[in-house]
Amino acid sequence: MADTWLPSLITETPQQGFELAITLSRRGVKYTQPDAEVLHKLRPEYANSHEALTAASQVVAINFQTVAAANGYWRK
Amino acid sequence: MADTWLPSLITETPQQGFELAITLSRRGVKYTQPDAEVLHKLRPEYANSHEALTAASQVVAINFQTVAAANGYWRK
Amino acid sequence: MADTWLPSLITETPQQGFELAITLSRRGVKYTQPDAEVLHKLRPEYANSHEALTAASQVVAINFQTVAAANGYWRK
Amino acid sequence: MADTWLPSLITETPQQGFELAITLSRRGVKYTQPDAEVLHKLRPEYANSHEALTAASQVVAINFQTVAAANGYWRK
Amino acid sequence: MADTWLPSLITETPQQGFELAITLSRRGVKYTQPDAEVLHKLRPEYANSHEALTAASQVVAINFQTVAAANGYWRK
Amino acid sequence: MADTWLPSLITETPQQGFELAITLSRRGVKYTQPDAEVLHKLRPEYANSHEALTAASQVVAINFQTVAAANGYWRK
Repeated sequence: MADTWLPSLITETPQQGFELAITLSRRGVKYTQPDAEVLHKLRPEYANSHEALTAASQVVAINFQTVAAANGYWRK
Repeated sequence: MADTWLPSLITETPQQGFELAITLSRRGVKYTQPDAEVLHKLRPEYANSHEALTAASQVVAINFQTVAAANGYWRK
Repeated sequence: MADTWLPSLITETPQQGFELAITLSRRGVKYTQPDAEVLHKLRPEYANSHEALTAASQVVAINFQTVAAANGYWRK
Repeated sequence: MADTWLPSLITETPQQGFELAITLSRRGVKYTQPDAEVLHKLRPEYANSHEALTAASQVVAINFQTVAAANGYWRK
Repeated sequence: MADTWLPSLITETPQQGFELAITLSRRGVKYTQPDAEVLHKLRPEYANSHEALTAASQVVAINFQTVAAANGYWRK
Repeated sequence: MADTWLPSLITETPQQGFELAITLSRRGVKYTQPDAEVLHKLRPEYANSHEALTAASQVVAINFQTVAAANGYWRK
């Protein structure tokens, strides 16, 4: 991908860090399936399945571990 | 999301940390499916499936790793 | 939950730490499905499925990582 | 469980550490299903499924992370 | 495999690190199934399944943890 | 197992570390199913399933975290 979408893992707040974790999770999908139309078509099925939502939340949790560690857990 | 729901990863006790891990896990779901009504409809199916409950517990465990590390494991 | 069930992550021995990891894993389930009767009904199906048992063991493993780190791996 | 099965996470070699990770993974199953006969009955189905074998290997990998960290990765 | 495909975990930017995590995830597949033709045949099925895409994103997230730690999270 | 297959987690290069992670993942399977003939029979089914290949790649990723940490990420 040519564009810069991840200049840094540092965020000001934990919440912004969580949102960055969501971005990372979605990018992990996009690198495998870059076609936005396909992703759009999968969405309704996806967003109405509790298995899928829990699986998505798990990927976010893993990425949040990385972002939180990068930010020293925003301890101060 | 406009509201502030995650001002800090620091909690006073391990138990509050575990409850924060639950909040993080639920937020991971809500960012993908923000429609509360849909989530409500999925709930009975979800809460009566042992696979779903174990999967939920796994996401909590991953988020708890992050919160526990952030708090220095509440060692003192 | 009003009761205190997690006052500390510190245990005297690795084995007690492993048992605490089991408690954490079960609590992760209970926060999602607090109805003890439902959990009881799910149990036979659960405890006789190798997929479920492996999945449970995985959640315990993740929680044990946290407890073991908290205890400095009981190195001394 | 009354018996002591986990006195320490420290092992002499990485290989013994890997074997301890296997013990931890099996104990994670036994705490949920302590009936040895049931486990024995599940075994053929389990040991002939590639999904199950990969899932088992994953639990071992997670537990090995813990044991390896406890041992300072046996660096010297 | 005879060729050198992983000379280092160090990258200049977080984004390059994320792309290295994708490479690691794909290599993890290739070591199990080296036949490019088989992988090519599996691709359409794979890239149109939301379960598969989330699972892929999870492997990337795990590998990104490793790459990010290797790079000190590109903190400076 | 009587033979020594894991004398050390230290490798010279990241790529050798990745290959050790693959060995660890396969050993995790072999401890559960030591019968080489059974494993051989499962292989075609396994190597042609994208779910199985992604799951295998995930176990490798987890083991690679361990090996990479053991080697100080081969930073030099």
